[in-house]
Amino acid sequence: MNREELIKRIRERKTFLCVGLDTDVSKIPQGVTPLEFNKAIIDATREHCVAYKPNLAFYEAMGIEGWELLQETMSYIGNEHFTIADAKRGDIGNTSTQYAKAFFEKLNFDSITVAPYMGRDSVEPFLQFKNKWAIVLALTSNVGAFDFQMEQGVSDRLYEKVLKEVSSWGSPENIMFVVGATKAEWLKDIRAIIPDHFLLVPGVGAQGGSLEEVVKYGMNNDVGLLINASRSIQYASNIPEDYAKAAKAEAERIHEQMKFFL
Amino acid sequence: MNREELIKRIRERKTFLCVGLDTDVSKIPQGVTPLEFNKAIIDATREHCVAYKPNLAFYEAMGIEGWELLQETMSYIGNEHFTIADAKRGDIGNTSTQYAKAFFEKLNFDSITVAPYMGRDSVEPFLQFKNKWAIVLALTSNVGAFDFQMEQGVSDRLYEKVLKEVSSWGSPENIMFVVGATKAEWLKDIRAIIPDHFLLVPGVGAQGGSLEEVVKYGMNNDVGLLINASRSIQYASNIPEDYAKAAKAEAERIHEQMKFFL
Repeated sequence: MNREELIKRIRERKTFLCVGLDTDVSKIPQGVTPLEFNKAIIDATREHCVAYKPNLAFYEAMGIEGWELLQETMSYIGNEHFTIADAKRGDIGNTSTQYAKAFFEKLNFDSITVAPYMGRDSVEPFLQFKNKWAIVLALTSNVGAFDFQMEQGVSDRLYEKVLKEVSSWGSPENIMFVVGATKAEWLKDIRAIIPDHFLLVPGVGAQGGSLEEVVKYGMNNDVGLLINASRSIQYASNIPEDYAKAAKAEAERIHEQMKFFL
Repeated sequence: MNREELIKRIRERKTFLCVGLDTDVSKIPQGVTPLEFNKAIIDATREHCVAYKPNLAFYEAMGIEGWELLQETMSYIGNEHFTIADAKRGDIGNTSTQYAKAFFEKLNFDSITVAPYMGRDSVEPFLQFKNKWAIVLALTSNVGAFDFQMEQGVSDRLYEKVLKEVSSWGSPENIMFVVGATKAEWLKDIRAIIPDHFLLVPGVGAQGGSLEEVVKYGMNNDVGLLINASRSIQYASNIPEDYAKAAKAEAERIHEQMKFFL
């Protein structure tokens, strides 16, 4: 899905919600299979979101069954939503190319999250695929973000240098950045560096963080935001008869807030 | 496998070679299946190496078949070699725990490579498993290493800060570091920061880099080195009748050099 199509869908559906699919077998309601669970969550949230983001770790933890679950989940999502492989990959060139093939071609994802530590030749292979995206970690929402990302360099903090460097390797048509919502006020400075790029913002919901603040500092003329919520939707209830309804209610609540800003 | 056992095997077999299993379907000899190929490479190199390192990207690029191939390859390797999942994972805590389960429990790897960008809470989950290891990226051997890893901070370069910080989160019993061999002379400074940790050194072989230099600056009293070669062994020949013999010859050549230092 290209940028124009993504923006069109956001405007039509009046939502920039991304639903995370962190499907944890120890948390899904008893008697419900992981595939049934994913399908129910997708059906419950389809009209309220513009993107889905399966977190690869949860699928890999299930082994081969997890890989099958991921394929079936992707095919159930279909083509009306932007899809993000939350995989945080990044390796030397020929290896990154293999990851790109795995996620863009085998699994048909629109995008993949990428860690920038190994530099340009680890990110560029993901930029060689038409209408596909690399979503590069800049400032994450966890406590550990303070260990290295906030490190002051000669002129910039590390995450600022990442924004400046990485944005020069591609364009707002094939690069997005991950920016945590727990530091919404910093979005102002971030927007000064990258006014046009889409930002994938985790940390609204279970990780705390205010939608209003994120919109205030992070939204641009093309919206430019994908706000993710995972656990607060998927695990709104763990009662078999109730979880899909509870997920829908939470997605709808966020959707209603988002309509206000679009 | 714990540190003591690893050192014992290195001393007994007189080798600290790690054989990378970057099994690329476009490169293996015609008419040979990926599993036959891996088994032949393992049989050809077993006595010459102490570790195997499957590169996850190549398996994920094959989809479900790749996951099966990885399981079968791991079971064929057995328990006499240290195993490294070259996956370069790293995510917020609950996600890293899922990756740890996937690689340590489902696939029974001894270790996994981890990217440090997301900080302490992304690395620590890998340190909670007995006799399992996190092998953290410090200074990689690709050109992109200069983009961020070499960035000068207030007192240290980023990779030096990574070495100092990360080594304080665990011990030389459960943390190793990836240090590229293309900068062998820097191993001296690295050893001043982390005298005891094992280093996983890629970049001897296809990526260039001298074994002698690495040993000179990087070896410690417990050897403290795992030197990886992937393509130079796996793809020494692409002739079906010949590739296993050629792989063995190349592994043996490196083994003979290593004996000299042990």
